[in-house]
Amino acid sequence: MNDLPIYLDYNATTPVDPLAAQALEPWLRERFGNPSSAHLYGKEAKAAVETARAEVAALIGGRPEDMIFCGSATEANNLAIFGVARALRGERRHLVTSAVEHPSVMQPMRWLEAEGWQLTVLPVDGAGRVRMEAAAQAIRRDTALISVMLANNETGTMQPVSEIAALAHARGAFMHVDAAQGAGKIPINVHDLGADLLTLAGHKFYAPKGVGALYVREGTPILPIMAGADHERGLRPGTENVPHIVALGTAARLAQEGLAREAARLQQLRDALQERLVIAIPGLLLNGHPAERLPNTLNLSFPGVAGWQLLAATPEIAASTGSACHAGGHTVSDVLAAMSMPQEQALSAIRLSLGRFTTTAEIEEAANALINAWRGLTGAVG
Amino acid sequence: MNDLPIYLDYNATTPVDPLAAQALEPWLRERFGNPSSAHLYGKEAKAAVETARAEVAALIGGRPEDMIFCGSATEANNLAIFGVARALRGERRHLVTSAVEHPSVMQPMRWLEAEGWQLTVLPVDGAGRVRMEAAAQAIRRDTALISVMLANNETGTMQPVSEIAALAHARGAFMHVDAAQGAGKIPINVHDLGADLLTLAGHKFYAPKGVGALYVREGTPILPIMAGADHERGLRPGTENVPHIVALGTAARLAQEGLAREAARLQQLRDALQERLVIAIPGLLLNGHPAERLPNTLNLSFPGVAGWQLLAATPEIAASTGSACHAGGHTVSDVLAAMSMPQEQALSAIRLSLGRFTTTAEIEEAANALINAWRGLTGAVG
Repeated sequence: MNDLPIYLDYNATTPVDPLAAQALEPWLRERFGNPSSAHLYGKEAKAAVETARAEVAALIGGRPEDMIFCGSATEANNLAIFGVARALRGERRHLVTSAVEHPSVMQPMRWLEAEGWQLTVLPVDGAGRVRMEAAAQAIRRDTALISVMLANNETGTMQPVSEIAALAHARGAFMHVDAAQGAGKIPINVHDLGADLLTLAGHKFYAPKGVGALYVREGTPILPIMAGADHERGLRPGTENVPHIVALGTAARLAQEGLAREAARLQQLRDALQERLVIAIPGLLLNGHPAERLPNTLNLSFPGVAGWQLLAATPEIAASTGSACHAGGHTVSDVLAAMSMPQEQALSAIRLSLGRFTTTAEIEEAANALINAWRGLTGAVG
Repeated sequence: MNDLPIYLDYNATTPVDPLAAQALEPWLRERFGNPSSAHLYGKEAKAAVETARAEVAALIGGRPEDMIFCGSATEANNLAIFGVARALRGERRHLVTSAVEHPSVMQPMRWLEAEGWQLTVLPVDGAGRVRMEAAAQAIRRDTALISVMLANNETGTMQPVSEIAALAHARGAFMHVDAAQGAGKIPINVHDLGADLLTLAGHKFYAPKGVGALYVREGTPILPIMAGADHERGLRPGTENVPHIVALGTAARLAQEGLAREAARLQQLRDALQERLVIAIPGLLLNGHPAERLPNTLNLSFPGVAGWQLLAATPEIAASTGSACHAGGHTVSDVLAAMSMPQEQALSAIRLSLGRFTTTAEIEEAANALINAWRGLTGAVG
C-alpha cells in the first residue's frame, strides 16, 4: 500500500472491516435467499437479518424491534424527518434543526418548509455548538420534530443533544439525532440521549456503503416515505440488502467491543498530529470545539494557503477540504460559514479524520508532509 | 449442496454470479473511497461507478447518463411514479397502471390516488395480459403516467408494453416499465419498448440485493423523492453503494453476453418440466400466457391440493406459492385474482422459476418429487 496516499478521510467513508467483509460474503452466494421466502433459503436469510438487527440495536442501547434498516443514512434521515412530519401533519406545524446539519437533514427540512411548515434553524457558536438559549426559545408547543446531529462531519464538534431532547420532550416534540458521524466513535445510548429517532450510516463505521439504519422509539408517530410491500414493520419496503445488513451487524459488534480503547488510541494520535502541526506552523487555527469533539477529527486552518492548494501540494495524504458529500467548487462550507468564521480561515481549512487503520508512522509522515508543503507554499523557513 | 433443497425460486431472488461477487470484492476494502471525494480513493470509486453505469445502460439500450442508481427496484418504482407525478402536478391529474403490478408500483399509485390523483387500473385477461381495448380507453389527454410491467413475477406473462407506450405517447403521457422480472431473461431495448422510465432490480439477475436502477429518458419530467446532496444528477441523494453498483454492472454485462443462449436453455428445461408434470398429473393447469411468457417461469395449479400443502410435502425443492415479497397467509395472490381465476385454482398454484444454475438433473429430481408428493396427497396412483 506504499504507493497509495495515507488515508486521513475516515469521516468521508471507511473501508469495510475485514471481519465484516468476511461475514457478508456467504450471503452473496451460498446463502442468497430472499428473507420473504417461506423456504429454507428464505428462513436462513431472515434469521441473519434479525441477528444483525440485534447487533445494531446493542450499539445504541435500543431494542432490536425498533431498528429499521435502510439503503443509507440519507434515507434514514429522510424517513425520520418526512415520516414524523407527515404523521403529525394537521396536529403540529413547526420544525427545528441546526445550521450545521448534513444536507440529508437540512434539505428535507427545506422541502417541508416549502410545503408550508414553519422552520427554525438554530444558530451555532464559534465552536459549532448549538446555542442552548436559541434552542430553548425555538421549541414551541406546536413543534413536531427537532433534528440535531450528534457530531459534525466537518469539525467533529458534538452537540448537547440530551439537553435539547429534554427541551423537546417538555413541549411534546420528538427528537431526531443524526448519529452518522458519532456511531462507532463515541458511546451512544438512545435513552441517555433522549433520542426518539436516531440515524446510523454503515460506511462511517466499517460496514459497506449502501446500508443504514433508523432507530424509531416505540410510540413515535411515523409514516413510510416509500410505498410497496410490508418489509421492516411497514416502514421501509424493498427486499432487504442481506449481505450489507449482516456486515452492518458485525461492524456494530466490532465497534462496540473496541470502542473505549479505540477512541483513546485515535484521540492520542489525533492530538499528537495536532501538536506537531501547531508547533511547526505559527497561526494554525483549530476549527470546532477543542474538547467536545469526536476523538478522530481534526479540522485546521493553515495560514496563508487555501485548503485545496495545500492538499494539492501534499499528494502523500488523502484528506478533505469540505464534506465529501458536497465537495465541488472552492466555496466556503456551510458548516464553517455557520460558525461565523472569516472567509479566509474557512477557505484554508482542511479536515484530517483518523480511523481504525491509522498508524503512528502514518501520522508522523502526514505531519511532515503537511509541514513541508505548507512551508513550500508560503515560503516559511523551518 | 446435496443437503439443500433444489432452488426453483429465481423470480424471488438469485444468487450473485461468482464473477459479479468477485468484481465487487475489491470495492469493499482496498478500493473503498467515497465517489464524492476529490482524492485518488474517491476518483477510483467514481470511475468504477461510471463503468458500471455504462454496463447497465448497455443491457437496455439506454445512454449511461440516463441511468440512476437506487437502493432497490422498489425505490426505482417509487422514484419513477412519485417523481413524475410530482413534476406534472397541476398540469395533469390522471394515472394508469395494471391490475397485476408489484406492490412497489401499485402502492405508490394508491398513495397518489389518496392525494387526489385519478387512477385507472387496467384489467387483465385470463392469461394475465392487459386488455388493450381497456388501455386505449383509459389513457386520456390529462394522463401523466402509465406504469405497466414488462413481465409478471408470479406467472411470467409479458405485457404488450410497446403498444401501450404508443397509446401513452399519442396523448402526451409518459410510460414507465417495471422490468424487474424481465431484465436478464429477455432482450430489452428502451427505444423499442417506448419506455420513458424503466426499473431494474439487481437481485433478479445475479447482482446483489440492495441495488437497483431507474432509466430516465432525457426530457422526462421528474423530481427526486428524497432530499440531500447532489448525487445521481440530483435525483437520488446518498453515498453510492459502490460495491453493489460494480456488481450490478458486471451482472448486466454477463446477462447481456449470454442472453439468447441462456433463454433458450431455460425455456427447454422449463418446458421439459412442464411436460413431465402435465403427463403425470391429470387436470394440471398452466397459469399465465402459454407463449408470451418469461422463458424461466412455470406457474401451475395442481388439482386437489393447496399449493402450500404440496410444497410442504416436497422438501426436496424450494419454490413459492405466491410472490415472495408479499407471502404470508394462504390467501389468493392479487395477481391470480386479477386473472379471474377460480379460488380453488389460485390456492393450488405453485410458481417454479428456473435460473442460471438450474441443471437437467435438478429438473428431473424436482419433477419426480412433485409428482410423488402430489400422488401421496391426493391418493392418485402412478
